Amino acid sequence: MSQHFADRLAQAVRKKNTGLCVGLDPRYASLPNDLKAEFDHSYAGVAIAYQTFCLRVLELVEPFSAVVKPQSAFFEQCGPDGMKAQQLVMRRAREMGFITILDAKRGDIASTATAYAQAAAQVWNADAITVNPYLGRDAVEPFLNVARHDGRGVFVLVRTSNPGAGLFQDLKCNGRRVFEVVADEVGSWSIENLAHCGFGDVGAVVGATHPEELKDLRQRLPNVWFLVPGYGAQGGSAADVRAAFRSDGLGAIINSSRGITFPFQPDDPNWESAIVEAAKKAALELRIAN
Amino acid sequence: MSQHFADRLAQAVRKKNTGLCVGLDPRYASLPNDLKAEFDHSYAGVAIAYQTFCLRVLELVEPFSAVVKPQSAFFEQCGPDGMKAQQLVMRRAREMGFITILDAKRGDIASTATAYAQAAAQVWNADAITVNPYLGRDAVEPFLNVARHDGRGVFVLVRTSNPGAGLFQDLKCNGRRVFEVVADEVGSWSIENLAHCGFGDVGAVVGATHPEELKDLRQRLPNVWFLVPGYGAQGGSAADVRAAFRSDGLGAIINSSRGITFPFQPDDPNWESAIVEAAKKAALELRIAN
Repeated sequence: MSQHFADRLAQAVRKKNTGLCVGLDPRYASLPNDLKAEFDHSYAGVAIAYQTFCLRVLELVEPFSAVVKPQSAFFEQCGPDGMKAQQLVMRRAREMGFITILDAKRGDIASTATAYAQAAAQVWNADAITVNPYLGRDAVEPFLNVARHDGRGVFVLVRTSNPGAGLFQDLKCNGRRVFEVVADEVGSWSIENLAHCGFGDVGAVVGATHPEELKDLRQRLPNVWFLVPGYGAQGGSAADVRAAFRSDGLGAIINSSRGITFPFQPDDPNWESAIVEAAKKAALELRIAN
Repeated sequence: MSQHFADRLAQAVRKKNTGLCVGLDPRYASLPNDLKAEFDHSYAGVAIAYQTFCLRVLELVEPFSAVVKPQSAFFEQCGPDGMKAQQLVMRRAREMGFITILDAKRGDIASTATAYAQAAAQVWNADAITVNPYLGRDAVEPFLNVARHDGRGVFVLVRTSNPGAGLFQDLKCNGRRVFEVVADEVGSWSIENLAHCGFGDVGAVVGATHPEELKDLRQRLPNVWFLVPGYGAQGGSAADVRAAFRSDGLGAIINSSRGITFPFQPDDPNWESAIVEAAKKAALELRIAN
């Protein structure tokens, strides 16, 4: 039997002694000039540039991070060649021992959701995938079923990190806001399958840009791993995200994308050491109680 | 300047005299045996089987439908080869004069949403893409910006067709249900850019499985094209969807996937004529007032 996703995540985080997750959001304009010069500007060329860059980032951040989160949109932007790059980056990350979260924010009705879930597990070989809750439980269910088949996980969007997140998520319904209703559902789905560490295989995406809500949600969802975007470039600080952790330092992985992968100007020849320094600093800031 | 999406859609629908949209949801188990026998069962083999089947469907339904809606999940399930098949099917459909809606239900924060939107326009060359509203206006905005750049459109999920759609969509907030709040937003986004036909370039996905709500939403959103899934195999009837149309027969495209593309058993040698008959029948049922 496969080990439970939440235990695998807890082990990986304990081993690296940090809740840091490195987001892989390759953007052409931000890539180092010396790397860009090796490839042409066709879809295939950009896809290989993304792949080359991301594989190098994996090596550079490996000592400082247990989790990586490739953002599917940027690979999709390069078409089928980009999807090949995504597949290769996901595979290599897993081989290196990273827990891999494919940030795809998928969501569809049952039979279609099953296709996305199977793609996530079999094609992309993701340890977990991010999922949008708008369609309800029966649309999330296929992701759970596929994930539970072999020790994978699902992260459901609860409170996103964007400035306009509140438009629908903050609507008040009988005393609870929409994202709180979603959170309570996620909590009940999560306890269906708890691991030794006390967490379930259904996580919640909660933005670092809302520290008060992060704190409330931690109390509301004691058994739920949080994936926290919005740290670093989007404005969330280490103090902001502290409330996301359980007292033993588990329960949250804090994502930084640009802050770690692009802490340099494209013409900086020392971009690799800039990445190492950024990852080291973030990992220290997010050190867990071991 | 590119022609407005809503006018292009209106013209296409008037020309074929039907609101029928054919959903391309290729499923391996349902494919005709004689077609499956031509390809191996590798990812690449299944992808080419999907491509071959969908291209044949396009030819068969061309007289009866103005709009096709490839479902991205099934292509993604075949990995990068599947994405190549998706690209080719989308391209051929557009060349044949179909309005193409990529059913991808994407949604992410701004810079990431821009990547998805550019992929939809440039890589997949979709006339429109389906988008999930959970993250709010600033997450939908990049899709609008890219679409408005050259006469494309966006369909926002409002009320989905799955049995559990109501879990979050039906929550009551100050007298309005969540999907009604989303609907009202979609209505206000839509009138920002109205076409000659009176519709905007932001449409709404509204399931045929909720006929009462379809009727209410038609009155609530007089300027919004509806994309109506759930007709046929999911249980919605022609009578159920009548309320989705404006009095001149425009304003709604009614999607049928399995009902048109798989009205046969895999061992049926006459599967092509079965598709033609199913498309002809559905097109007649959904004939518009011209």
